[in-house]
Amino acid sequence: MQMQNTSSSLIDTLRQRRQRLATLVDFPAILWSGSSSPRNFPSNMLPYRASSHFLYFAGLPLVNAAVRLEAGQLELFMDNPKPGNALWHGEMPTREEIAQMIGADAAMPMAELDLWVEGAATIAVQDAGTWTQQSQLFKSNILPQHQPRGIDLEFAKAIITLRLTHDDSALTQLRTAGQVTVEAHKAGMAATKSAHVEAEVRAAMERVIIAHNMTTSYNSIVTVHGEILHNEHYHNLLQSGDLLLVDVGAETEMGWAADVTRTYPVSGSFSSTQRDIYNVVLAAHDACIAKVHPGVEYQDLHLLACTVIASGLVDLGILQGNAEDLVEIDAHALFFPHGIGHLLGLDVHDMEDLGDLAGYEQGRVRSDRFGLAYLRLNRPLQPGMLVTIEPGFYQVPAILNDTQLRSKYQNVVNWERLSQFADVRGIRIEDDVLVTSVGNEVLTVELPTKASSVEDLVRHTA
Amino acid sequence: MQMQNTSSSLIDTLRQRRQRLATLVDFPAILWSGSSSPRNFPSNMLPYRASSHFLYFAGLPLVNAAVRLEAGQLELFMDNPKPGNALWHGEMPTREEIAQMIGADAAMPMAELDLWVEGAATIAVQDAGTWTQQSQLFKSNILPQHQPRGIDLEFAKAIITLRLTHDDSALTQLRTAGQVTVEAHKAGMAATKSAHVEAEVRAAMERVIIAHNMTTSYNSIVTVHGEILHNEHYHNLLQSGDLLLVDVGAETEMGWAADVTRTYPVSGSFSSTQRDIYNVVLAAHDACIAKVHPGVEYQDLHLLACTVIASGLVDLGILQGNAEDLVEIDAHALFFPHGIGHLLGLDVHDMEDLGDLAGYEQGRVRSDRFGLAYLRLNRPLQPGMLVTIEPGFYQVPAILNDTQLRSKYQNVVNWERLSQFADVRGIRIEDDVLVTSVGNEVLTVELPTKASSVEDLVRHTA
Repeated sequence: MQMQNTSSSLIDTLRQRRQRLATLVDFPAILWSGSSSPRNFPSNMLPYRASSHFLYFAGLPLVNAAVRLEAGQLELFMDNPKPGNALWHGEMPTREEIAQMIGADAAMPMAELDLWVEGAATIAVQDAGTWTQQSQLFKSNILPQHQPRGIDLEFAKAIITLRLTHDDSALTQLRTAGQVTVEAHKAGMAATKSAHVEAEVRAAMERVIIAHNMTTSYNSIVTVHGEILHNEHYHNLLQSGDLLLVDVGAETEMGWAADVTRTYPVSGSFSSTQRDIYNVVLAAHDACIAKVHPGVEYQDLHLLACTVIASGLVDLGILQGNAEDLVEIDAHALFFPHGIGHLLGLDVHDMEDLGDLAGYEQGRVRSDRFGLAYLRLNRPLQPGMLVTIEPGFYQVPAILNDTQLRSKYQNVVNWERLSQFADVRGIRIEDDVLVTSVGNEVLTVELPTKASSVEDLVRHTA
Repeated sequence: MQMQNTSSSLIDTLRQRRQRLATLVDFPAILWSGSSSPRNFPSNMLPYRASSHFLYFAGLPLVNAAVRLEAGQLELFMDNPKPGNALWHGEMPTREEIAQMIGADAAMPMAELDLWVEGAATIAVQDAGTWTQQSQLFKSNILPQHQPRGIDLEFAKAIITLRLTHDDSALTQLRTAGQVTVEAHKAGMAATKSAHVEAEVRAAMERVIIAHNMTTSYNSIVTVHGEILHNEHYHNLLQSGDLLLVDVGAETEMGWAADVTRTYPVSGSFSSTQRDIYNVVLAAHDACIAKVHPGVEYQDLHLLACTVIASGLVDLGILQGNAEDLVEIDAHALFFPHGIGHLLGLDVHDMEDLGDLAGYEQGRVRSDRFGLAYLRLNRPLQPGMLVTIEPGFYQVPAILNDTQLRSKYQNVVNWERLSQFADVRGIRIEDDVLVTSVGNEVLTVELPTKASSVEDLVRHTA
């Protein structure tokens, strides 16, 4: 627990959040922080991550704690450090001291929580130890894979209303996460020319994040095989001619995330085919960001990206036909199979623990269209929302070698022309974009996207 | 899964291990690998660590897999990647391919495992998802916090017999972990003079580990407050006059660990008081390592360290009396409250998931003496055992301000003299020592321990 993280402004922020909650629900609610899990034996633990809903209202990553929220009041439940704990872990703040740090209205030991559950809503925490506790206390199955019901659902919706748009305190954290992420990407670019394997670039980037006392907000992707979308291996050699796809984000100590991707040539020079496709992806990226504005439907940004990509691929002779028609039949999804992005906040896919409840406006459900099924966000944009914009182009073998897809799209793909782009396995360009009342602000704008600027950063190695 | 990790020598090693097991038990046994846990939502997972017992026999960190061992045979149980998986994760090896990589005698889907549990022993995995599966299949509570019983206990003892001493394949891995750890410590020393906070030194070290495609084997300790024994904060400023205590170890991709500590002056120069205490700790370190030899009782090494430390503190005027008598009354433990070390292998405290079953020779139990209670290993040394030797000196407020302890040791501590050593909050020096048939080999010997050599490494910054 670091006292320097807390201040009267944190206390004010937390008070405002629970007061806003009180305008949305008229029943109490209890949120657990969660507990850490052993790595291979009990005294060697995995890194601890407090539940994001807890962090939103309690501010600090407390372990094995809970807060009860009612009518704008916050009660903290946690046990004091055990006697003897100070020998190994030093003096830790007491429950009362922590209650003061976060402006709690009362503080009680965990054992008293069972007197306070009646009529309260809750949300399941991810770790089994904690949702077992929750289930016992509420005498019903509170499981993370269950969709919440009744007042739990009402509470979840109220939290979503609050967390969908970010207050100033959150924005300060999110900007910091963005800045450190930009610095990490620059360090990765500078380290690439002298690196032999992907792991070395990852290491140079995570060094920056760790040096700021932060953690990665998700498992880094640093790969010359960008066509593998969730690639968490780092053993491949970097070879001249390779593109390196780098999707790495920092998370602040209070849990606020960034999520940024750049793709660049290992040698510092794009081949002409790589540059051509890069510029198609960049055009989609820029077009979407330019359109980010309150009231705009996020799905329309996705479709815009699809159209810009389809149009670019038509210009390059890879697709044949009219861009709008191609998007209509999901031909873009052969090369851009995922969504244009997602919500960003305390989670890198913000509130995805609640399934599509946060990502999809009430009454909307996921499409089963090949070109829309992976869209994680489908809402009109509001000021204060933070979203990613992350178009991409990939030659995914599981898609392009699929006989059904090949036959369906036989006449719209020029396979021979495509084969000339074999050195473009995967490209993604991703930034974090805040919706403002007047339009948008790219929190990660300090990291260039223009092909020549990216080349410059790679060439001027550390 | 990385094919390059496997070879005929791995297959031979794994066969030898299960054949040795077959000489120790005449019943089948099933080991699970475990599963990964969500960080804050299901598609954002915590780093995965396979169970060490599984890794010992299966060699690869497979997720959600099990092996059945009987009479020197190994059957692999795991499900093939789901269709559609290749889109996101690329082509993964099939069950049959993995079976070939590890030399399995048969391979079956997970669902068939319930036909094979009868009469089999098992050991609980740490993660709740997996021990719930284990409990359901065995129709009894297989919990990590339960001491194994019946054939489970026999099986655990057989595994301990095997894992207590390391074969050549394990030693190759352990040496690699040691080398990377040494490199990380040197990088940390080189980064210290220009660093402003602890986190920056940690970052320089973990960069080396990540660049080798490894992970830390435990949460790094990098602190100017060495008196807090398990200090996992990294926010303190590095100030001239501070000692930095650095306890960081690498773990190979196959799970084998190193565990090394150095303590050095942030400025590159020990004060005279710091150097005096450092040399006392180093004398204990060197004396213990010199004594590591087959047949030697590890507890005697601990007592030797206690005596050397007590004697050194008498020479410095901090303790008063005869060293042996001081150790007899646990006066050393005022400043050296932990044990001299532990087993090292696939776990950084090897096999500590089994409690003291591995650490303590059959028939021995933990002492409740203040100066012995934290000793994790109490066995005669055997060739092939890898142990840490890690004496220390700490001014732990929870100990030195304890009124009972102060009054008990009132006459043996010169409190006024001690106050002159206020700039020595915590020092530990730790190396990884292999017991060989002719004596010992320090796997981490390339990292200097002499005060002047350590100063040189810090002064010659990167």
